[in-house]
Amino acid sequence: MEALLRQSKSMCPFLMKTSPATLRTLSTAATFTASPGGGSMSNLQVLARRCPVMGKALAVQTARTRLATVPGAARRYHGKAGKANLHTTAAKEAQAVNVEPPTPQPAAFDYEAFYSAELDKKHKDKSYRYFNNINRLAKEFPRAHTANKDERVTVWCSNDYLGMGRNPEVLKSMHETLDTYGAGAGGTRNISGHNRHAMELEATLAKLHAKEAALVFSSCYVANDATLATLGSKLPNCVILSDSLNHASMIQGIRHSGTTKMVFKHNDIADLESKLASLPPSVPKIIAFESVYSMCGSIGPIEAICDLADKYGAITFLDEVHAVGMYGPHGAGVAEHLDFEAHRTGRPTGTIMDRVDIITGTLGKAYGCVGGYIAGSAKLIDTIRSLAPGFIFTTSLPPATMAGATAAIEYQVRTNADRRLQQMHTRQVKHALGAKDIPVIPNPSHIVPLLVGNAAVARQASDLLLERFGIYVQAINYPTVPVGQERLRITPTPGHTGELQAHLVEAVESVWAELGIKRTSDWRAEGGFIGVGEEGKVEEDPLWTEEQMKLEETMHVKAGCRSIIGDD
Amino acid sequence: MEALLRQSKSMCPFLMKTSPATLRTLSTAATFTASPGGGSMSNLQVLARRCPVMGKALAVQTARTRLATVPGAARRYHGKAGKANLHTTAAKEAQAVNVEPPTPQPAAFDYEAFYSAELDKKHKDKSYRYFNNINRLAKEFPRAHTANKDERVTVWCSNDYLGMGRNPEVLKSMHETLDTYGAGAGGTRNISGHNRHAMELEATLAKLHAKEAALVFSSCYVANDATLATLGSKLPNCVILSDSLNHASMIQGIRHSGTTKMVFKHNDIADLESKLASLPPSVPKIIAFESVYSMCGSIGPIEAICDLADKYGAITFLDEVHAVGMYGPHGAGVAEHLDFEAHRTGRPTGTIMDRVDIITGTLGKAYGCVGGYIAGSAKLIDTIRSLAPGFIFTTSLPPATMAGATAAIEYQVRTNADRRLQQMHTRQVKHALGAKDIPVIPNPSHIVPLLVGNAAVARQASDLLLERFGIYVQAINYPTVPVGQERLRITPTPGHTGELQAHLVEAVESVWAELGIKRTSDWRAEGGFIGVGEEGKVEEDPLWTEEQMKLEETMHVKAGCRSIIGDD
Repeated sequence: MEALLRQSKSMCPFLMKTSPATLRTLSTAATFTASPGGGSMSNLQVLARRCPVMGKALAVQTARTRLATVPGAARRYHGKAGKANLHTTAAKEAQAVNVEPPTPQPAAFDYEAFYSAELDKKHKDKSYRYFNNINRLAKEFPRAHTANKDERVTVWCSNDYLGMGRNPEVLKSMHETLDTYGAGAGGTRNISGHNRHAMELEATLAKLHAKEAALVFSSCYVANDATLATLGSKLPNCVILSDSLNHASMIQGIRHSGTTKMVFKHNDIADLESKLASLPPSVPKIIAFESVYSMCGSIGPIEAICDLADKYGAITFLDEVHAVGMYGPHGAGVAEHLDFEAHRTGRPTGTIMDRVDIITGTLGKAYGCVGGYIAGSAKLIDTIRSLAPGFIFTTSLPPATMAGATAAIEYQVRTNADRRLQQMHTRQVKHALGAKDIPVIPNPSHIVPLLVGNAAVARQASDLLLERFGIYVQAINYPTVPVGQERLRITPTPGHTGELQAHLVEAVESVWAELGIKRTSDWRAEGGFIGVGEEGKVEEDPLWTEEQMKLEETMHVKAGCRSIIGDD
Repeated sequence: MEALLRQSKSMCPFLMKTSPATLRTLSTAATFTASPGGGSMSNLQVLARRCPVMGKALAVQTARTRLATVPGAARRYHGKAGKANLHTTAAKEAQAVNVEPPTPQPAAFDYEAFYSAELDKKHKDKSYRYFNNINRLAKEFPRAHTANKDERVTVWCSNDYLGMGRNPEVLKSMHETLDTYGAGAGGTRNISGHNRHAMELEATLAKLHAKEAALVFSSCYVANDATLATLGSKLPNCVILSDSLNHASMIQGIRHSGTTKMVFKHNDIADLESKLASLPPSVPKIIAFESVYSMCGSIGPIEAICDLADKYGAITFLDEVHAVGMYGPHGAGVAEHLDFEAHRTGRPTGTIMDRVDIITGTLGKAYGCVGGYIAGSAKLIDTIRSLAPGFIFTTSLPPATMAGATAAIEYQVRTNADRRLQQMHTRQVKHALGAKDIPVIPNPSHIVPLLVGNAAVARQASDLLLERFGIYVQAINYPTVPVGQERLRITPTPGHTGELQAHLVEAVESVWAELGIKRTSDWRAEGGFIGVGEEGKVEEDPLWTEEQMKLEETMHVKAGCRSIIGDD
């Protein structure tokens, strides 16, 4: 056994270099990246199975052990249910070499029973999801029909924040591109799927973010996953520092990179710095964070994180998915917004946005289409383009999608009207709900999260709003938010006029009363929770300042494009 | 040290259970899943860094070791370049406790230099990719324009195998849906992105494959990745058996699952069985394979694999990405094709397709749009829908894309004309090239791979075809195919008429002569390679039999839909 251990020690860098104290700490206190699943094994087994050496050895070993303890199992097993041999014992076969009493034969794994058990768990903890059939109508934005084509509801939870999905310039561009170039791209970017639409879109995105280059992916989930997985696995001994509220796509990308992850407390600069300081300068480090955290509406301290990145030799990876189109004088996001005047007057050099190394964004939310992207230095983009399997081995976005997205970006570069109107509606809705003691989770962004705190009640509230008031606001439950923080997440758009707002507030008030959901004052009486009813907490000012809002400009909206807004 | 080893042994299931012999074998002969990157470390270091325990410990340990050997490094480091302190030595600071001679300070990591080095590697091994700007024209299929809108080329390498990207029914459906429902879905499936188009598409797909349910993803890359990663991580002690030529999306999915992978030799039933037999019946097993392997055109032994799955209690995961739309009386793929008459007459029960547990496919190749899917039992689909982050946390496909894909599937369910014509053109092209001693890699499918065997020459051949003959065939190099197996991959479509075929054959002959690329007879003289020029090898018959081709039916094409085909 000692020979085995000596051999293992020389093979395994972990054993070779780690002290007993560190081992003890790791065996009890280490935080691990959650797997998509988890299974029912001990933590150590889960971890061991992720190691390609350990995992393989474990499987082989387990197999051999089980086969060894079940006489004749390998020979006797001939079907999923093993029926043919179920009642055949070794004794009846009269084999001289096999005289033990019959041993129960291991059954084949029951896959359908396993699926049922997984689904049962979801039902039991109320995290099972029922999708609502909602069909948003381009001509009646923000109205939609349900399964019944004649039944109308108002959508209050879409991420088409600016209603660009029905913008006439976007639709015109898509129709024309469909007619000229057809439905799909017909190949990967390398094999017949590269075209003028991809080049134009990427040039537009690079210009938007004032970066040298950009790269488009199937989605920003894929962009985040592929970029972090590739950088994390390629940069030697890379450490990725990740905000604790980062989106699932970043968490997966970091996990898929296989590299070291350090999670810092949400928006906590001091915690981030202490983690950076624990690492040597020469180690490559990526700080991954978001500008607008979509489920609570908090905003990342971009400048402070850039300062830390400079100080400790890290690069910054900023997810602007919920911010592009919505902030900044050209809609480039929060990083642009922070130097509003400099960007408005065409001076991006030396700005905060200029300092961010990698910006990721989506074409599927404020730009109303689908797809995701990264923007950064030419060499970074070329490296990801050349190495990321999630980019290389997949069909390009359709030409019409890319043309539509380009049109949407260009439209939002030209005017601040939509994002200002969206901000105004956000303020109005937050104010009106707050006045009714409805627990809006405070934040400086365009998200209006209402704290419910219970999965079943959140779903009931959502169902009531839909069925009784024709208002669609999806309940947000685990795993999108932690258990106990379930909420309704409201996203006003430029089309959510005063009349629609009044109806929403009335409906929410009624549902809160009927279901007896806690008010802000109730949370306050309990000492507050995730910002709701927390005494002495200073609320952040909205990111869009009064001056930037310049209300008189809000109405400069193109005729025919958003006529519904006229009565607001 | 012995105490440390004892402790490690009790913590680590790998050390606890593995024999010295197995350790020796694993340290030399184990095959490992390739990471997206790889880095410049030893294999063992790469492996160790993937283990969450080892990886973290290694990073922490490395950091501490380096900090310990560089006096004051942590305190002194205050900038990316460390300029401020570069010339400050401990001696000058006159600290009593620190009298060693000055030690060189570690510089911050140079990210841009790293990207350059990665790109240099790609240039040096000729795997750097130059994308061709090719704009396929819906009205001139299979013609396209280049960067110059007036310059026409013929596309011979698109995966829009049937030209459905320009099908009038598909385009009509997309135009109408765009007008009524707008550009994007506006949310994830759970949050306002679920609609009648998603429901109709999934119902159509389930019916196509005669399964209980289906689930749509952003792409089939995501479908394969998310499904295998979720099943592999959730099924307790799961083992995934993977064909050695499986697509990158499956390889990534298996890697991301963190579970045990066993690679079996391409299409080798005996090797697969020996691996299955080494595992206990009770362990869940997934056999992951393809029907048409896209780069060589070989076809997986679906029925034999289903037999093995039954025998050893495994489930089958069949990627029909390059087969849907192309095989079977309704275009459901190779699994459907194998029971052509049963499916043609509406009797799917008990067929090979019926026996496959999970079928995955794409909407972006023969169906001409974009997106991917899985089909299987209702509980399996609901489980993936409920657990897979790659499905849950991403914006839905646009309504118009889903409507277009539904129209394409329904169109191809109604007629065999397109796939038959495609097969006829494939046979003609293979025959004509073969007659010129051009090394077509033999296969029974619709792919026409021409062996070149050198990355630089393959690219030269592709460039020559484009520049001199106006024929676009992308060179396929590493990592899409192994080094030394570089090829041109030709994909005829129904629109590639006799005239276009004659031009292709003439052009290929000219390029082969000019560049002195090996002919089939040259490969034969060397003993043959990957099927080309291998003496005594019996060529497989095309999957579409003479009877199924029923040439007299080939022309039953709807007027107006593919008028260009008339002169073939």
